[in-house]
Amino acid sequence: MSADNEGIIEGRNAVTEALRSGVNIDKVFIIKGETDPAIRHIAGAARSAGAAVVETDKRKLDSMSLTKSHQGVIAAASFTDYVSIDDILENAAKRNEKPLIIICDEISDPHNLGAIIRTSEATGVHGVIIPKRRSAGINATVAKASSGAVFHTAIARVTNITAAVKELKKAGVWVVAAAPDGESSLWEHDFKDATAIVIGSEGTGISRLVGENCDYTVNIPLSGKISSLNASVSAAVLLFEAVRQRG
Amino acid sequence: MSADNEGIIEGRNAVTEALRSGVNIDKVFIIKGETDPAIRHIAGAARSAGAAVVETDKRKLDSMSLTKSHQGVIAAASFTDYVSIDDILENAAKRNEKPLIIICDEISDPHNLGAIIRTSEATGVHGVIIPKRRSAGINATVAKASSGAVFHTAIARVTNITAAVKELKKAGVWVVAAAPDGESSLWEHDFKDATAIVIGSEGTGISRLVGENCDYTVNIPLSGKISSLNASVSAAVLLFEAVRQRG
Repeated sequence: MSADNEGIIEGRNAVTEALRSGVNIDKVFIIKGETDPAIRHIAGAARSAGAAVVETDKRKLDSMSLTKSHQGVIAAASFTDYVSIDDILENAAKRNEKPLIIICDEISDPHNLGAIIRTSEATGVHGVIIPKRRSAGINATVAKASSGAVFHTAIARVTNITAAVKELKKAGVWVVAAAPDGESSLWEHDFKDATAIVIGSEGTGISRLVGENCDYTVNIPLSGKISSLNASVSAAVLLFEAVRQRG
Repeated sequence: MSADNEGIIEGRNAVTEALRSGVNIDKVFIIKGETDPAIRHIAGAARSAGAAVVETDKRKLDSMSLTKSHQGVIAAASFTDYVSIDDILENAAKRNEKPLIIICDEISDPHNLGAIIRTSEATGVHGVIIPKRRSAGINATVAKASSGAVFHTAIARVTNITAAVKELKKAGVWVVAAAPDGESSLWEHDFKDATAIVIGSEGTGISRLVGENCDYTVNIPLSGKISSLNASVSAAVLLFEAVRQRG
């Protein structure tokens, strides 16, 4: 975790103060099996502040810790102010453009997440949606991998990607998932209308429930022996196809 | 350098034996200012074997060393058998396709080089050309970042990229460089004919001499505040545009 250690807040008092002060906290890691009411109290405050609470074993907490006195609680601060899905749709409306949105479904590798945000910013995407859980937060590693694009991109962090997909569909956005067995190739798909593109993790792809709620699936045709692309490469190829079509 | 340490051969005898045995050696690092004839002899043998010889200060050698007894000589083994430019052209001829080639001009980041090779393999590129100097070799990090694509891709390692560009042009291949100020957009450029695409390093772009020798330059239109793409993303976007055009 060494490269991730910036933005780490350790210890009961420090984390409590951080939550109180309104610092953006992505995640609070608490030691597994702890029944101490003080820790339970911090977990409650973290949830109220919109942070994900993750029970973590001692070894992992130790490895994240810089001070080696985390007292069973470590918080990961966010490098960005998150926005809402409405804010993202408003971004598009303000620019008089059809929404173009990237949804990252459980991209846990911070380098991949940063790279996706970098390309999203460069292609003028109106916003990026990430889940609270099973995803890298916007930490120092993501910020660096994004080449600073996290500071110029509207990023929404949602509790539930399926709910976000439903919300977008209700707002008239077509949701299309990238999948190796997608029903049409990216070049056959029409990206000119309001579109959200779902990128799944390299390991497991799009989660089943999210996939079932998408309007379309598209594939990126491959011709080599290696049967998959890096997640950030998939995102880039789809985004630039959207840019090409929108001309 | 920790992640790069696999494939490292240290010490005078070990490196001499490796060179003698015909192991593929990318680079031999020798200590700067050393006048010992034994070291000079190893450098000569390395050059004869086609390896790049790089004079390196003691601190860097020490940091590369696992055994801490490198005796002023460290060799980096290659994970691949390099091919020639002719082999790459023959690959295309055998498949009855117009050559599609990627030239990496000084991509020093092994993750980027690996990612470019991964996408090259996935798009059916006929070969990748890298320079001996100022480039990552095909080491363990590159192999991993390529998701194993290095084992399915024809890779040529050349002394001089400009000479390689001239050789390709003589063979009827159009050489096109990706550049932010490129004369046409990638969508206006015709990739259907025999094409080699030059990708420069993120820091410094295409080197001047290489740029002057290319037939065309193309840009990838960007609309954000971040004015550049990751090198492996640029390569992917250009390669998939070539695939799209070639249908």
